[in-house]
Amino acid sequence: MSVYTTVSEAELAAWLSRYALGELVSLRGIAAGITNTNYFVTTTHGRYVLTLFEVLRLEDLPFYLGLMSHLARHGVACPAPVADHNDAFASLLAGKPACLVTCLDGQDVSTPSAAQCRAVGEMLALMHRAGDTYPERMPNPRGPAWWSRTASGLYPFLNEDEAALLRDEVAYQEAHRFDALPSGVIHADLFRDNVLMQGETIAGFIDFYYACNDLLAYDVAIALNDWARRDDGSIDAELARALLAGYQSVRPFIEAERDTWPVMLRAAALRFWVSRLLDFHQPQAGELTYTKDPGVFRHLLEAHRTRSDFWL
Amino acid sequence: MSVYTTVSEAELAAWLSRYALGELVSLRGIAAGITNTNYFVTTTHGRYVLTLFEVLRLEDLPFYLGLMSHLARHGVACPAPVADHNDAFASLLAGKPACLVTCLDGQDVSTPSAAQCRAVGEMLALMHRAGDTYPERMPNPRGPAWWSRTASGLYPFLNEDEAALLRDEVAYQEAHRFDALPSGVIHADLFRDNVLMQGETIAGFIDFYYACNDLLAYDVAIALNDWARRDDGSIDAELARALLAGYQSVRPFIEAERDTWPVMLRAAALRFWVSRLLDFHQPQAGELTYTKDPGVFRHLLEAHRTRSDFWL
Repeated sequence: MSVYTTVSEAELAAWLSRYALGELVSLRGIAAGITNTNYFVTTTHGRYVLTLFEVLRLEDLPFYLGLMSHLARHGVACPAPVADHNDAFASLLAGKPACLVTCLDGQDVSTPSAAQCRAVGEMLALMHRAGDTYPERMPNPRGPAWWSRTASGLYPFLNEDEAALLRDEVAYQEAHRFDALPSGVIHADLFRDNVLMQGETIAGFIDFYYACNDLLAYDVAIALNDWARRDDGSIDAELARALLAGYQSVRPFIEAERDTWPVMLRAAALRFWVSRLLDFHQPQAGELTYTKDPGVFRHLLEAHRTRSDFWL
Repeated sequence: MSVYTTVSEAELAAWLSRYALGELVSLRGIAAGITNTNYFVTTTHGRYVLTLFEVLRLEDLPFYLGLMSHLARHGVACPAPVADHNDAFASLLAGKPACLVTCLDGQDVSTPSAAQCRAVGEMLALMHRAGDTYPERMPNPRGPAWWSRTASGLYPFLNEDEAALLRDEVAYQEAHRFDALPSGVIHADLFRDNVLMQGETIAGFIDFYYACNDLLAYDVAIALNDWARRDDGSIDAELARALLAGYQSVRPFIEAERDTWPVMLRAAALRFWVSRLLDFHQPQAGELTYTKDPGVFRHLLEAHRTRSDFWL
């Protein structure tokens, strides 16, 4: 399902001569990921993940790959991109921008424990700290301007209740300004399928291709909205507290972050409700993704709008 | 023997807060290395090697640690230094410049096989290629100027035959110019104890603190003079050919390198003969190293001066 571009062994073997990684031993498609093509590549020197980018262009990649390299260099658990003899992390393969990253052990977790949520929170805070010294910048392409604009195109497709909720939440978020909050490089998509774990240890955060500069607490809210969410869409208070405790063991929230935390949780729910509504009602022509249920984030947003306990 | 500076767990735990590596779990001195103090450090996130530099100063380290980081980023098997929250690879600990690098599996090999020599040659060539894009420069502090100067101070300590041989070889090397040979970043000390292996695979080159810019073929000669040398000081032709074949599978020698190869082997033997003579006859006050036999390299030099087969 997620090998959209086929690479032959001969083609890959030739491309690998750009790298100091030895000879190709084997090549195997990875049945995960919904945007890019991924392969496990084994060479005489080790095991790597090959990604062919189906949407991102070669010139888009330095921000993301440079970030992963920077974070890995600081000990943050994530794949490290491998540079080729031209000192580049990416080049064309089979007509697509392609890169190799180190292969991590571990697997994603569908039903996390409190200890795993705590570990995710802690590593996210370490990622935020390490990102402080990353010099490149990327505005968030899915921030408030994006969801306001996207919402306008969605109202015709929604029922009255949904449209009213969306309109109200967009207005609510627009009415809140966050200039005083700490910002930096965020992962922006730290869902359960983007973390590899070995037991209670983080083997690595993966899939940094939504990373950008935005509010750090917003990134925590995105992660909490997935990691602490039960199958029925409700939040498990123990998991939520564990993730926040792990995060704050490294970087405690400042007062302004505590004050605006409920707004952040709503913003993080809104952002994914909007993108899922968009995928559902206006799928891109020829898109190969499977559509995820937007309702989960609508219910989460509604719950966040009415709850009184925010686990801080 | 090689823990010259003692670090307490409390001191290390405090210093570790500079890093995104979690909490200290354990600390254990490493009984290897003759210049620096090394510890295995286990944190909640992984296993690292801590080095405290006994001679190098903090301002000397960026060349070496930046090089290791560059090579690791290019897939060359070597430890990757970890950057701290200030984006620095080194800072003071217990009054000494100190760094953390990733911990590699594998162990050094005292009696290498031909396959292991081949792997060393191949990885050395990959290291030379990857070094092409490393922007920093370091002249070789132990090049011809150093050995000529050092030899002058040694003649009074040598018997007539030794002095004549040393004088003649220094003059011979001075009479040869190598401006046409490929140069770049070299390891300059790739002896058997500086390579960790897992079976026939290189787990990592270590100890880059003699690395500098010099002739690439000279680096190959240094490695060959150790890896292919039998206990009696003679060269094992099969091991020598294997190392050279591995090297040339990645970077074949150019004609000028083939022509001057016998001179390189002599230069590499001379350099270590001189440094061992220096350690033997004029040990530095308070130096904690154990003195290695200079005779091995004298015999090797004499053999190189008379042989007709150079394994190319």
